[in-house]
Amino acid sequence: MSKRTARGDETRRQILAAATDLFHKQGVAATSPDQIIEASGTGKGQFYHHFKSKEGLVHQVLQTYLETIRNGGGPLNYHITSWDDLGQWFRGQLALQKRYRMTRGCPFGTIGNEVTENDELIRQDLSLIFEVAKARLATFFVKEKASGRLDPSVHEEQLADFCLAMIQGAMLMGKVKRDSHLVEEVVRQTMAHLGSLRRS
Amino acid sequence: MSKRTARGDETRRQILAAATDLFHKQGVAATSPDQIIEASGTGKGQFYHHFKSKEGLVHQVLQTYLETIRNGGGPLNYHITSWDDLGQWFRGQLALQKRYRMTRGCPFGTIGNEVTENDELIRQDLSLIFEVAKARLATFFVKEKASGRLDPSVHEEQLADFCLAMIQGAMLMGKVKRDSHLVEEVVRQTMAHLGSLRRS
Repeated sequence: MSKRTARGDETRRQILAAATDLFHKQGVAATSPDQIIEASGTGKGQFYHHFKSKEGLVHQVLQTYLETIRNGGGPLNYHITSWDDLGQWFRGQLALQKRYRMTRGCPFGTIGNEVTENDELIRQDLSLIFEVAKARLATFFVKEKASGRLDPSVHEEQLADFCLAMIQGAMLMGKVKRDSHLVEEVVRQTMAHLGSLRRS
Repeated sequence: MSKRTARGDETRRQILAAATDLFHKQGVAATSPDQIIEASGTGKGQFYHHFKSKEGLVHQVLQTYLETIRNGGGPLNYHITSWDDLGQWFRGQLALQKRYRMTRGCPFGTIGNEVTENDELIRQDLSLIFEVAKARLATFFVKEKASGRLDPSVHEEQLADFCLAMIQGAMLMGKVKRDSHLVEEVVRQTMAHLGSLRRS
């Protein structure tokens, strides 16, 4: 790799990191290219060299999130093989939220709630993220059911969507109320509900 | 009331209605005063006569929502006195979402996910909306428990927060995926969970 390419990659990485942080903090609509350029310590020319538009940048940010859900490397472990893992996955989201003193929600919820009929690419990206996350959780439920450790009437994908919806709603309300206890309680009730579906 | 005051009230009402619709459709950050002025068929002078800033307008929009949750008159019945009412309350939110072909979420979720550390007034408004909604649901659970029709170990306010978080998350995911079936299924599972807490 030439020095020039390496420097270009680093610039691109800096822009992506700054954009990821700002979108999470304040959403997409409130974030201007100028803010991203300033926060990333890059220049306007570099920004538009790497990303043709803000939409293209949002797309790349979401693709990067998707990659970590698929292949790991993110702050949350989506490779769930036990009930403990599932509990950790729930609590890990709250831990992330606490890191920002409950001033931020889930990045997918923050960007997702902004999506309008004109943001079809972004909506598809988020839809895919929710699909892949659902598949991760559902795979665990499928194995548990196949081993007789989960109520046979459970629809695994629907239960996974239930978990995802719950954590999205809990993080939104936790952010609005700046209340980590609320999120803990909603997670506790969800785990209790899941527990009632377990069979030994 | 003088003609002049009546006309002023009507202008104010038009601006509020247009803003409420645009905030629900695309969020606050994406909505400019100019867009609201155009959608309401009013003028810039009238807009700034009635509302000093966009923040003041968001505050009024949320106060109006709060008023309908407290005193009725909105599309959802928050005066819940039976399990049927509760089911209706859940399904009513999906019906509202379907009216917009699943392109919008809950207005409180849409605005709430945008809230940053600089939006303290708006955050307080939304926090109050969630508190009042929680109290409506919790009041029903308190009565059910007192009558021996709900598991005595239930914490009524926490169960109410659980219901609110669930519908917020379901509507967000329903919007991102344009999928009313997902919302129906999450509501069904929540009602099943609530059903498991009922005592006859």
